[in-house]
Amino acid sequence: MELQELLYIIDLTGTFVFAMSGVITASERRMDIFGASVIGFVTAVGGGTIRDILIGSTPVGWMLNSDYLFVISAGILTALFLHKHISRWYKTMFIFDTVGIGLFTLLGMQKTLTFGLSPTVAVMMGTVSAVFGGVVRDVLVNRVPLIFRKEVYATACIAGAIFYAIVEPFYPGNIWTVMFSMAIIIAIRVTAVRRNWALPLPN
Amino acid sequence: MELQELLYIIDLTGTFVFAMSGVITASERRMDIFGASVIGFVTAVGGGTIRDILIGSTPVGWMLNSDYLFVISAGILTALFLHKHISRWYKTMFIFDTVGIGLFTLLGMQKTLTFGLSPTVAVMMGTVSAVFGGVVRDVLVNRVPLIFRKEVYATACIAGAIFYAIVEPFYPGNIWTVMFSMAIIIAIRVTAVRRNWALPLPN
Amino acid sequence: MELQELLYIIDLTGTFVFAMSGVITASERRMDIFGASVIGFVTAVGGGTIRDILIGSTPVGWMLNSDYLFVISAGILTALFLHKHISRWYKTMFIFDTVGIGLFTLLGMQKTLTFGLSPTVAVMMGTVSAVFGGVVRDVLVNRVPLIFRKEVYATACIAGAIFYAIVEPFYPGNIWTVMFSMAIIIAIRVTAVRRNWALPLPN
Repeated sequence: MELQELLYIIDLTGTFVFAMSGVITASERRMDIFGASVIGFVTAVGGGTIRDILIGSTPVGWMLNSDYLFVISAGILTALFLHKHISRWYKTMFIFDTVGIGLFTLLGMQKTLTFGLSPTVAVMMGTVSAVFGGVVRDVLVNRVPLIFRKEVYATACIAGAIFYAIVEPFYPGNIWTVMFSMAIIIAIRVTAVRRNWALPLPN
Repeated sequence: MELQELLYIIDLTGTFVFAMSGVITASERRMDIFGASVIGFVTAVGGGTIRDILIGSTPVGWMLNSDYLFVISAGILTALFLHKHISRWYKTMFIFDTVGIGLFTLLGMQKTLTFGLSPTVAVMMGTVSAVFGGVVRDVLVNRVPLIFRKEVYATACIAGAIFYAIVEPFYPGNIWTVMFSMAIIIAIRVTAVRRNWALPLPN
Repeated sequence: MELQELLYIIDLTGTFVFAMSGVITASERRMDIFGASVIGFVTAVGGGTIRDILIGSTPVGWMLNSDYLFVISAGILTALFLHKHISRWYKTMFIFDTVGIGLFTLLGMQKTLTFGLSPTVAVMMGTVSAVFGGVVRDVLVNRVPLIFRKEVYATACIAGAIFYAIVEPFYPGNIWTVMFSMAIIIAIRVTAVRRNWALPLPN
């Protein structure tokens, strides 16, 4: 299996897990199955969609590749029907979620750079790709976005993204820069969760 | 009167009723007249605007046709000034709202297909066109979108949209496919409200 | 110093103050420094970003000019580190905020007209440019947008914008039309705050 193929499978798996996590959040808020499905969908595609709209890449990405629609539908249905059994899978889901976030950051950066935008903007858009699906989900279920209050994984994305932005120009197109940047994101997030790290409050 | 003309009048009437309903929702939330007007506006155009942004049809539709601005202003002013009398009109408003939702779904699908997107995406964007004005309204008045909790009309839109997506290719451009798809949406919604149907919760 | 230069400095100063005010709002809501920074950012660029997306000017403006990113970062850092001292500066901040709102309205209108859209749409987009950063901020901190409830400054923007829309065609490109329209916005807002003006509620 090619490395590119592996990355594509990670992309789809991450999308699947994002869709599931959206449905689970919605279920806890007493939404019906339509509402839960919409929340699952926007959690999975929200970050990439906001990035695409901001950089001007329309129609947005998921409209052009039916693999995503298929994987998201599968994630939504799995969460709807196997809701009660999912708690056993939290560890597995956490792994795929974390790897997915790492990859989404890098793919988001690459797409932004393709549009001729600056590395600084690419770092921002990479982080938005990974993190803002959850922000849209939280706005729709009417709560302050979790990530603004205590999660540390946006910081992990930013760290990996900055690494990529600095190293990429020295080894253009080298896939190991991608892999290493992802590893940084995954490592920081796993450590942060284990040690219960949190960013300081402003006041 | 041509059928196309009739559909345009339904479009404008639906927009008018959407604007009114937005203002009414805002009034119940103690907004001032500026806030109520903005909510009326986004309720009327929100769904189509989100569709246009996602498929890349910008400037968004309502900017290019002053009929919409005129009709929305009229709907907002009517609701602001005749607020107390509106409760008597609920039945009439419900009819126009339902017919409007049916038409918005179909118009949203047609525009999406014009952009070369797949029938699956067209079903989604048709539903978004009809339903997401209310979602934006609910986010702005800070409540969980009603449609995610108990309304069944998104399901009605999806059913009519799927019918259209399947039948249209057999009779391309035939206006009766539009009319029949709208009839399905209207029939399901009216029945759903009468019988108090609701989608099941996930858990 | 050229007048154009002066306007650019006002633009950047207004952006700086907007970013600060976003961070302050977020701090009151117990967000961490990442959350507060994001809120500062969207408060500063949110209005112009929504305008750019709606009229189809992508990539959105702030991605193409690093001055904005620099000024916003400075505003966020100032608010994060000098949080406790800011209360002394409220008067100064109010002045720059008010002048900034006046300028953002006019710049937003000019950009909208450049895209060939109607003066009515330009009035709306000018107001959106000035006001919707605060709306996005309020949605993200999960409260009903302040401006929909009691602020009167949207009305000030609309008044100045309508003046500009009417007078500009008679003196095309004359910078004094811009200055005078800004003066109207500033005068109405300052008077409104002094006299505690508020728009009536609909009911």
